[in-house]
Amino acid sequence: MTTDRPLSGIRIADFTQVFAGPFCTHQLVLLGAEAEKIEPVGVGDILRKYKHGGDQMGGTSGSFISINAGKKSIELDLKNARGREVAERMVATADVVVENFRAGVMTRLGFSWERCRELNPRIVYASLSGYGADGPMKHFPAYDHNMQAMSGMMTLNGAEKDPYMKVGFPLIDSFAGYTAAFAILAALRQRDRTGEAQYVDIAMLDASIVLMTSMVVPYMNAGRAPPRTGNRGYSGSPTADVFAARNGQLSLGANWPYQYEALCQALGLPELIDDARFATRDSRIANEIELRTLLEAKLQQEDAEFWEDHLNAAGVPASKVRTIAEAVALEQLQMRNLFQSVPVSHGDERSVKILNNGFRAEWNGVSDPSPLLGEHTDEILSRLGFNQQAIESLRAEGVVGRGVSDAAAAGS
Amino acid sequence: MTTDRPLSGIRIADFTQVFAGPFCTHQLVLLGAEAEKIEPVGVGDILRKYKHGGDQMGGTSGSFISINAGKKSIELDLKNARGREVAERMVATADVVVENFRAGVMTRLGFSWERCRELNPRIVYASLSGYGADGPMKHFPAYDHNMQAMSGMMTLNGAEKDPYMKVGFPLIDSFAGYTAAFAILAALRQRDRTGEAQYVDIAMLDASIVLMTSMVVPYMNAGRAPPRTGNRGYSGSPTADVFAARNGQLSLGANWPYQYEALCQALGLPELIDDARFATRDSRIANEIELRTLLEAKLQQEDAEFWEDHLNAAGVPASKVRTIAEAVALEQLQMRNLFQSVPVSHGDERSVKILNNGFRAEWNGVSDPSPLLGEHTDEILSRLGFNQQAIESLRAEGVVGRGVSDAAAAGS
Repeated sequence: MTTDRPLSGIRIADFTQVFAGPFCTHQLVLLGAEAEKIEPVGVGDILRKYKHGGDQMGGTSGSFISINAGKKSIELDLKNARGREVAERMVATADVVVENFRAGVMTRLGFSWERCRELNPRIVYASLSGYGADGPMKHFPAYDHNMQAMSGMMTLNGAEKDPYMKVGFPLIDSFAGYTAAFAILAALRQRDRTGEAQYVDIAMLDASIVLMTSMVVPYMNAGRAPPRTGNRGYSGSPTADVFAARNGQLSLGANWPYQYEALCQALGLPELIDDARFATRDSRIANEIELRTLLEAKLQQEDAEFWEDHLNAAGVPASKVRTIAEAVALEQLQMRNLFQSVPVSHGDERSVKILNNGFRAEWNGVSDPSPLLGEHTDEILSRLGFNQQAIESLRAEGVVGRGVSDAAAAGS
Repeated sequence: MTTDRPLSGIRIADFTQVFAGPFCTHQLVLLGAEAEKIEPVGVGDILRKYKHGGDQMGGTSGSFISINAGKKSIELDLKNARGREVAERMVATADVVVENFRAGVMTRLGFSWERCRELNPRIVYASLSGYGADGPMKHFPAYDHNMQAMSGMMTLNGAEKDPYMKVGFPLIDSFAGYTAAFAILAALRQRDRTGEAQYVDIAMLDASIVLMTSMVVPYMNAGRAPPRTGNRGYSGSPTADVFAARNGQLSLGANWPYQYEALCQALGLPELIDDARFATRDSRIANEIELRTLLEAKLQQEDAEFWEDHLNAAGVPASKVRTIAEAVALEQLQMRNLFQSVPVSHGDERSVKILNNGFRAEWNGVSDPSPLLGEHTDEILSRLGFNQQAIESLRAEGVVGRGVSDAAAAGS
């Protein structure tokens, strides 16, 4: 990782919590940005205390650690006038403000887009919410699974007549956060070009629709509801589906005639190429049960891993249906710089594995741990020009947290 | 939409086809970039001819139109030496090269990263593939549904003991394309900072893993496989799930005690708040069938839309389970600048609806149609310094397509 990176020198006043917002700023920290995370005094980002999957690590959840590495934490009471003064200095000296409160909260706290632009005429202001900053649903709260219902996504999964079923992981949280990071990179470029403050408004609902582009746009224009196709691929081909091998299942992607022919050859079933029942795509669809029977009889002679290697070598897309455990163990993934190892906290000998941006470059990654609650309170206050006496005064009033020693104790 | 935009003046030599690659460059066109799309002579991007969902529009598929608006098309034979010379001039005068061929193809064509950097020492080179540019699986072909198998994603959906089922739309294609667009924005910033060419390598497999961060990272560190939870939200709360209303289903998100209390109050069931069977999260889990029965008895008295409004007003996340048709009709979405209307082609009175980047800003969107095959061949050749005689010579040899009039005929 080079030291001069795309977002070197870019500072983020990070008002986000839980998932989509911190996931956004995580993507930017991975590019070299400095994120100063504002957390409620004594409480912190509630994601710290999530118990999902029993993933507690040293008092802080694995979920928190996964998306907060390298950030700095200031424990700050935004409901206190002196606390807001601290945050105003943060905004005035930042390049980016990111928030994912419900609509109206930032305005009530005194950090609306208009106010932040006054504080800093070059600020990039990113607002991330369920439904967007205005409109009839702007006050609706939302979690990922609710948005899967609202956006139509639940009705795409499974086969026709199956009950509606959501996607089994919070993909909208992740994608909306990623979309926000993309919007911020674009806005920074526009800010640098024009010298003017920029506003971007990211909604989970919009992001859901964009992720479903290949279903939504054909529907909007051709007027037909997308079919539910179970495990069949987007092409609709009967040989783009899941088949049983000897030990496990195999997802095949023989969409095109040349791929179907390669599949038959690689399976040692060349007679199926010209068999009248299967000679065209339409005939393969008409006789797909017979075709499946013949293919699976052969596939059951070897393990899914064997076929995966054998078929891909022959140019036929094929993947064993893997668990998450099997997937992250893939040799292919170990050389991608995707897995980043950071300490649990400063001085802790234990490390945790987290993820990079999802692409390989010379300049993305992170090596610092996620912060203890309030770990950088004094550092940030000093940067903002508060002297030791002023810091003690803020602390005495409970405007900021008790600082590093306490944070270290809380984290142990 | 302002005319001065984040990527104004940025030119892309666009070697991509089908979905993830064109989806990437679409995101950049929406920010003001100029994409010159290289298409095989007489054939074009095969996405033009996809028949998915019967979405043909004027001879070009809705899928193609959805992600190619505003691009320019040059019909060019890259297997011909003179064709490659044209492409070399394109690379030399571009800011960005994007390609999504299988590993090795760009090198064989003479457009490896190393070669493109020689041609243009300030180029940003983005390679998008299933598995990445090297490693044991680099030659594996892959479609979205295969990658859902390979990445572990299929094993997350549904409830325990359900058969493994993929997500019903090609989300990895979309997300990998979006990731590539993000990588390119970051790389452009790095290029501008350092003055040096940049290489980014985006893999669908890596992108899949990043999208599943909230499952993958807790697994990697806590060692437990994520549970399959059907329609239950990430929190695992019994009141973060799907319930039957009078007319339709409702996805509720009452994760926290205050939300459970608000739910009971808003449903007119305050007695459930202190009922010993449901007073704590653990007791609600232990008695969830009884709780569901009581809640649904009330929910069935009104339609899902009624409850959606009523519960969200009370601070309880609630969404009707909508179809895609119902979702895109939401009033909330109409004011987001998400839906872009562009002509089917230049001079065509019909328009199509496509999607913006997924966030609202003053400077993102598109108003030009997707190109006819080869529509801008002459324009691009002229820009590159070929005079009319040279263009005719290239055309006579079949190195480029027959140009606008033919393209117009083919598109009609």
